[in-house]
Amino acid sequence: MTQHAAHQQHPILKRMARFMPILDWGRRYDRETFTNDAVAAMIVTIMLIPQSLAYALLAGLPAEMGLYASILPLVGYAIFGTSHALAVGPVAVVSLMTAAAIGKLGLSDPAAIAMAAGALALLSGAMLIAMGVLRLGLLANFLSHPVIAGFITASGMIIAASQLKHILGIKASGHNLYELIVSIFEHLGQTNILTLIIGVSATAFLFWVRKGLKPKLLAAGFKPRMADLLAKAGPVAAVAVTTLLTWLFSLDQYGVAIVGGVPQGLPAPAIPSLDRETWIALMGSALLISVIGFVESVSVAQTLAAKRRKRIVPDQELIGLGASNIASAVSGGYPVTGGFARSVVNFDAGADTPAAGAFTAIGIALATLLLTPLLYFLPKATLAATIIVAVLSLVDFSILRRTWNYALPDFIAVATTIALTLLLGVEIGVSAGVGISILLYLFKTSRPHVAEVGLVPGTEHFRNIKRHKVVTHDNLLTLRVDESLYFANARFLEDLVLDRVAANPALTDIVLMCSAVNEIDSSALESIEAINERLQSTGIKLHLSEVKGPVMDRLKRTHFLHELSGEIFLTQFQAYQKLSGMTPLPGTQKRSA
Amino acid sequence: MTQHAAHQQHPILKRMARFMPILDWGRRYDRETFTNDAVAAMIVTIMLIPQSLAYALLAGLPAEMGLYASILPLVGYAIFGTSHALAVGPVAVVSLMTAAAIGKLGLSDPAAIAMAAGALALLSGAMLIAMGVLRLGLLANFLSHPVIAGFITASGMIIAASQLKHILGIKASGHNLYELIVSIFEHLGQTNILTLIIGVSATAFLFWVRKGLKPKLLAAGFKPRMADLLAKAGPVAAVAVTTLLTWLFSLDQYGVAIVGGVPQGLPAPAIPSLDRETWIALMGSALLISVIGFVESVSVAQTLAAKRRKRIVPDQELIGLGASNIASAVSGGYPVTGGFARSVVNFDAGADTPAAGAFTAIGIALATLLLTPLLYFLPKATLAATIIVAVLSLVDFSILRRTWNYALPDFIAVATTIALTLLLGVEIGVSAGVGISILLYLFKTSRPHVAEVGLVPGTEHFRNIKRHKVVTHDNLLTLRVDESLYFANARFLEDLVLDRVAANPALTDIVLMCSAVNEIDSSALESIEAINERLQSTGIKLHLSEVKGPVMDRLKRTHFLHELSGEIFLTQFQAYQKLSGMTPLPGTQKRSA
Repeated sequence: MTQHAAHQQHPILKRMARFMPILDWGRRYDRETFTNDAVAAMIVTIMLIPQSLAYALLAGLPAEMGLYASILPLVGYAIFGTSHALAVGPVAVVSLMTAAAIGKLGLSDPAAIAMAAGALALLSGAMLIAMGVLRLGLLANFLSHPVIAGFITASGMIIAASQLKHILGIKASGHNLYELIVSIFEHLGQTNILTLIIGVSATAFLFWVRKGLKPKLLAAGFKPRMADLLAKAGPVAAVAVTTLLTWLFSLDQYGVAIVGGVPQGLPAPAIPSLDRETWIALMGSALLISVIGFVESVSVAQTLAAKRRKRIVPDQELIGLGASNIASAVSGGYPVTGGFARSVVNFDAGADTPAAGAFTAIGIALATLLLTPLLYFLPKATLAATIIVAVLSLVDFSILRRTWNYALPDFIAVATTIALTLLLGVEIGVSAGVGISILLYLFKTSRPHVAEVGLVPGTEHFRNIKRHKVVTHDNLLTLRVDESLYFANARFLEDLVLDRVAANPALTDIVLMCSAVNEIDSSALESIEAINERLQSTGIKLHLSEVKGPVMDRLKRTHFLHELSGEIFLTQFQAYQKLSGMTPLPGTQKRSA
Repeated sequence: MTQHAAHQQHPILKRMARFMPILDWGRRYDRETFTNDAVAAMIVTIMLIPQSLAYALLAGLPAEMGLYASILPLVGYAIFGTSHALAVGPVAVVSLMTAAAIGKLGLSDPAAIAMAAGALALLSGAMLIAMGVLRLGLLANFLSHPVIAGFITASGMIIAASQLKHILGIKASGHNLYELIVSIFEHLGQTNILTLIIGVSATAFLFWVRKGLKPKLLAAGFKPRMADLLAKAGPVAAVAVTTLLTWLFSLDQYGVAIVGGVPQGLPAPAIPSLDRETWIALMGSALLISVIGFVESVSVAQTLAAKRRKRIVPDQELIGLGASNIASAVSGGYPVTGGFARSVVNFDAGADTPAAGAFTAIGIALATLLLTPLLYFLPKATLAATIIVAVLSLVDFSILRRTWNYALPDFIAVATTIALTLLLGVEIGVSAGVGISILLYLFKTSRPHVAEVGLVPGTEHFRNIKRHKVVTHDNLLTLRVDESLYFANARFLEDLVLDRVAANPALTDIVLMCSAVNEIDSSALESIEAINERLQSTGIKLHLSEVKGPVMDRLKRTHFLHELSGEIFLTQFQAYQKLSGMTPLPGTQKRSA
């Protein structure tokens, strides 16, 4: 065997590597990559400990489930994922969606709630893997950019509002902004002053760390990357200081809510078991969580990959995230996906391969085994502060202004998404956003732009008579339909052509210029046949021009070409030459502004 | 006042006439039109009596409700409708859908069932009027031709199967073909021989009338139109003969099911009253009935109008049918629409104005007052025979072959509609058909056809390099995207362009030829911005050509034109001239088969 052959992969291994990228990058793993990954993992671990606890509380689950969701899921992604920098685990929006999904079940037993969260991860994982195997990653495209932007903004507001109760030390609940605000006002009298002081100070400190600390560190001579990473450690400092204070002064005796006993040790693997109705009730939510989680994660992964001129494989990402969620389900966790802030930290800290995720998992596992007693006195207000500061950066209403300036349907979609998410909750909000964008698209294509065109003098080009100075003839009407012809606009075309004919008695020939017609479906074909028949009975010939190859191939399989009263021209100019007699008379020439 | 002014309409009258066409045609009504309408009305009345009874039984309602649905609804349409030949009343498919909708409620009290049928008509009428006022007639376009054709075919089969129990004289039930067949086989042992004889003879007779009688009548010297109309009277003959035989031999004593006592006289006007839950439960069904009824009706009306070079007004038709259904609801009827067979008879018999419908209503009202005692001994098997013979003409599987030959997505939509209607019932069938056609359309547009194009030598035209002999250059890639760019295909374009760039290291310029791009939405704009940025970082310029006016108008409102690394060319030829240096070198010339 030559040196060369030794580096070649066995064909079966190669095929397997497509589904398990670890078989590919794992073979090239060396000491340097290991060092890079390990350093990145340490930094992400420190950031992830408070985040995972906080997001579990946001999801309405016991704090330890956040830790569990940050161990095996990361290993699952490390084996099957394709992004070198993506940091998988609990994230804000998916945690909020988990809370909404479980809230609908009306459970009160904590064990049942935890079980449902695991079931949601299992369903979501199975759906992601199914979509990956069926190469249905493009389904995510039906979530338009404005709808996602609006949804994330509205979710950020709901999340921030949902954490206010922890800052105030009161009980409040609700799955949308309205319910939350009403509930907070109702319970405002029960505010615990000590909790409020801790919460407000922690929030103020974290905002300062985010905005003010980094310039100070830079001024003090730290390197930019180090300053950045230190600033990211702010939540850990807040957790340490407030926990210490609470322990020293027994603040929990004065009504400060604390995390309390977190089971020490790792959960035994178990498959969530529920009754059939609950599984079915969770299906819709699981689908939404899968798609939203995938879209968020893939856009982060793509952005980071592009920075190193690498590419990720979206369909394989589905399998990676699916494996991750199934790992979460069987190890006491809840739905996970790739998080934005954490992945950026992972990237900046120098993560080289998905192994960084696996090392982070080891870090969190050690923390779960060793550090949980230290978290007993951690105030929930501190966790709420870390969430609020993290999610407010997601809130960005500029998408409203941008879509308003650019395209009304996009604005309607984003405004609907934001309004319904805030008023009726995340699931209705995002479903309505998707539904509205699809309906508006269909509605738009059902009333296509149709331009009457004429010849640009001295060229072979045809342009809209309303926008250009062009030559036309009274006997010849050329309509350019700017849309594929399909069932939703078939009747529109029929009405339009017949109206035009009625308005112009001198007509002898109509040309449908099909340069923008990418398809003619059965319904549209029937409509064109009807138009042809109707025109024929009034002595007008129907012609087509610039029919695209694939459209023409199909028309050839029908009787239409035999029935067509006129001709099919390769170019509009040929149609014009033949049907106008080529020498436009000055008298019939029309010029428009 | 001059003679001329006397014929002019008052402006308010004119505006009202838009919503009440009777104000228009009523003013020109004369003796000749009256005679034509009255003759047509007599013929339609004779045809409608057995039909209305039969369709009421099909809907699972008492026979008299069919008569009630054939009186006031016709008057309502006569006032508000625009078709001169449409005959409104109970029809087969809508009756089947009514049965399905009421079946879901699980009612057993006949009064409650009748009330629910009226409520369905009221809801359906209100929805039709709302759609008409909002000019939403185009909503009906989302029902593609193949889906309608498949749905009607499958419904015809279910209707025929549902009538077999009456022919056999057994009890059987089910809302889809499978349930019906199973139920019929279970009860086959209870077959009543006398009923079977009546049913089979009536069916055979009616088939013969349809196929064999007309040629005989023509041979006997009848005029074609007369022969046709006599053949249409077949059901009346079958009803008369079998009723007489049943009465003479007291066949009801031997187990032949008869229509029995039909209340003599007209129903008192009343508004259906139901509890809130039932109203809500009927909403979806009412919407389906409205849309299907409208589509069926409007296509009949359009076909008949075109024969006399007239046009109908679809949005006003919605109001006409809506008024008709509300009239049905308050007069003891159930959902109605324009029927195909009856409208053709009305047209052939010479109906001139919608008044023919009003005269038919008078005929049915008289029949209800005077003839109902005669219907006591009418065997249900005879009515079932008239239905079976009528609906089997709706069954036409050729749409499967035609769509298979023409376009796979259309075939999938029609096959799904037929299969699900037969297996799961009408409501699921038609909803799935609409859903599938929309999804397939979106799916198709989400993976658009993209052609690499080159210059057709000696012209200014650019064609697909795979289909034409064209000139291309190694440094210049021109892609023609054959679809509007929107959220569902934005990412597809991004992937495609970047893949092409990776495969071709000699590239310096990419042109997106936008002649078929009718729209670029916010998501697609973001993708193009991302493509531009990514290409720029690898030293490749992105250009656009043949951007349409409305698309360009929008782009001008963004920063994109400043960020674009290349240019925007009015024509692809200009782009080619500038970017290729205009003199194609023989060495870089590519010719494809």
